[in-house]
Amino acid sequence: MKVVVLAGGTGGAMLAEGLAAVLPPGDLTVIANTGDDVVLWGLHVSPDIDAVLYRLAGIFNETSHWGIAEETFASLGMLRRLGEETWFGLGDRDLATHVLRSEWMRSGMTLTEATAELGRRLRVATAVIPMSDEPVRTFIDTASRGRLSLQEYFVRERTEPEVTGVTIEGAGAQPSPAALAALESADWVLIGPSNPVVSIDPILAVLGDRLRPPRTVAVTPVVAGAALKGPTMKMLRGLGRDASPVGLAEYYARWAAVFILDSRDSEQASAIESAGTRVHLLDTVMAGSEGRARFAGELLGILG
Amino acid sequence: MKVVVLAGGTGGAMLAEGLAAVLPPGDLTVIANTGDDVVLWGLHVSPDIDAVLYRLAGIFNETSHWGIAEETFASLGMLRRLGEETWFGLGDRDLATHVLRSEWMRSGMTLTEATAELGRRLRVATAVIPMSDEPVRTFIDTASRGRLSLQEYFVRERTEPEVTGVTIEGAGAQPSPAALAALESADWVLIGPSNPVVSIDPILAVLGDRLRPPRTVAVTPVVAGAALKGPTMKMLRGLGRDASPVGLAEYYARWAAVFILDSRDSEQASAIESAGTRVHLLDTVMAGSEGRARFAGELLGILG
Repeated sequence: MKVVVLAGGTGGAMLAEGLAAVLPPGDLTVIANTGDDVVLWGLHVSPDIDAVLYRLAGIFNETSHWGIAEETFASLGMLRRLGEETWFGLGDRDLATHVLRSEWMRSGMTLTEATAELGRRLRVATAVIPMSDEPVRTFIDTASRGRLSLQEYFVRERTEPEVTGVTIEGAGAQPSPAALAALESADWVLIGPSNPVVSIDPILAVLGDRLRPPRTVAVTPVVAGAALKGPTMKMLRGLGRDASPVGLAEYYARWAAVFILDSRDSEQASAIESAGTRVHLLDTVMAGSEGRARFAGELLGILG
Repeated sequence: MKVVVLAGGTGGAMLAEGLAAVLPPGDLTVIANTGDDVVLWGLHVSPDIDAVLYRLAGIFNETSHWGIAEETFASLGMLRRLGEETWFGLGDRDLATHVLRSEWMRSGMTLTEATAELGRRLRVATAVIPMSDEPVRTFIDTASRGRLSLQEYFVRERTEPEVTGVTIEGAGAQPSPAALAALESADWVLIGPSNPVVSIDPILAVLGDRLRPPRTVAVTPVVAGAALKGPTMKMLRGLGRDASPVGLAEYYARWAAVFILDSRDSEQASAIESAGTRVHLLDTVMAGSEGRARFAGELLGILG
């Protein structure tokens, strides 16, 4: 069963890790958001791609929830000494990834090719593909700080400013041909439980037209009124969007005819179903590697 | 008194450090060899420039004799994990320098401008200037391993192969305009006690024509039959050159009419003088910061 996951760097990446543990090699493809990519000192940084790769390679930093385990920051300290702004937490090990990818891309590789090469070298059996090889950038409009890049909003401003709008620049970017091919041959496409605003919307902006709703499943990013991690609730509300599973299922209905609702929110199932989306109830909280594999297994069981 | 030092990364850099301690700010300029520059993963690495900058900034690694004090190598470890050759010891802090310089150069700065900016940011009062903004590369021909880049010879092969020849590619490079201006206004130019073959010869290949022998002083790189550090003796002999102070003074006579001979080699003074080069005897061994300042002070005393 060929499965594609649309993923940001947290929930979708966890789902990918779980699926990689239970699917045969070659059956899983992850299409990652690139809307929070950023070029720093000439280095192409792809936080969501890297979170997925590092997770699948078993080197993700579970403590900081980004970057590589046991990371150090000596390079960043030197950049600070050299007078650079260093609010972006670029680790020494992570830097190696960016240096190599940037060099490959300057030599003519696409982001898709560079990502595939990084995956090979990290011995990741799952195909990880950026949604596009062209630049797509998500900007956050805030009440107090104006328009911010995603990294400025998340890292420098720690998601504190009130969000008043989101702009996806490059939403008309050409999809990565590899992403299109993966969608074409997929039995199921899973919209991962990532932040709908900043992780999933950019992917949908580029690839939404290629999804077939009967074969697309959205996994709720919200459980018992809270997101797994990060400012998902705050952002949705700031944008005037309904942050409940009912609201999210309705929002995703254009692309996904199936919604995975957390068992804790079972009282919302009938409202979602009566709006025309099929609902499955599961424990969607993925605690640890076992929790991720457990959830992935149960999810595949449902899709069967 | 305006003084210019021609320097590689070891002896010449030490002399620069000593002079910086005793000359008024603004009176010292260092012109650094770029023949061992190398581009790694798209990063422009200038080992000799950086050794001089790090020394003058007080952050040089006195233990390893290159790079930055208390250096770590997490980035390099990750590059190794990513399948790259990592015999070149690129430290995490050092990497920050290369990332920043490379980005500046891609944005249009010359190496001279990037070096000046690094110096400003490291609060180095001494002007440090590359000999040229154009690529000059020194290659070592060896008996057992063929033609090697300087870094391959020094780092990867640990100077073990027998040297049979040296080729300076780009010897006709345009000098850095800032280097020319410094030479023009210098009262004295000092050929630092660096390796004549790999550190000084490339500088002379580019700037030799601009030196005025009566105002140029060569400091012996050889004391009591040995070099301060590195394979100077072995290389000179492999090339069939006379590695004694007499031989070196004779070699440098085309550019320098004054030779600083180590007191330990005083028996060679008359041979050098009779060949037409003026000799001054000094203790040229620069032990520690005090030793470098002591030697620089004595040297300036002689030049008056």
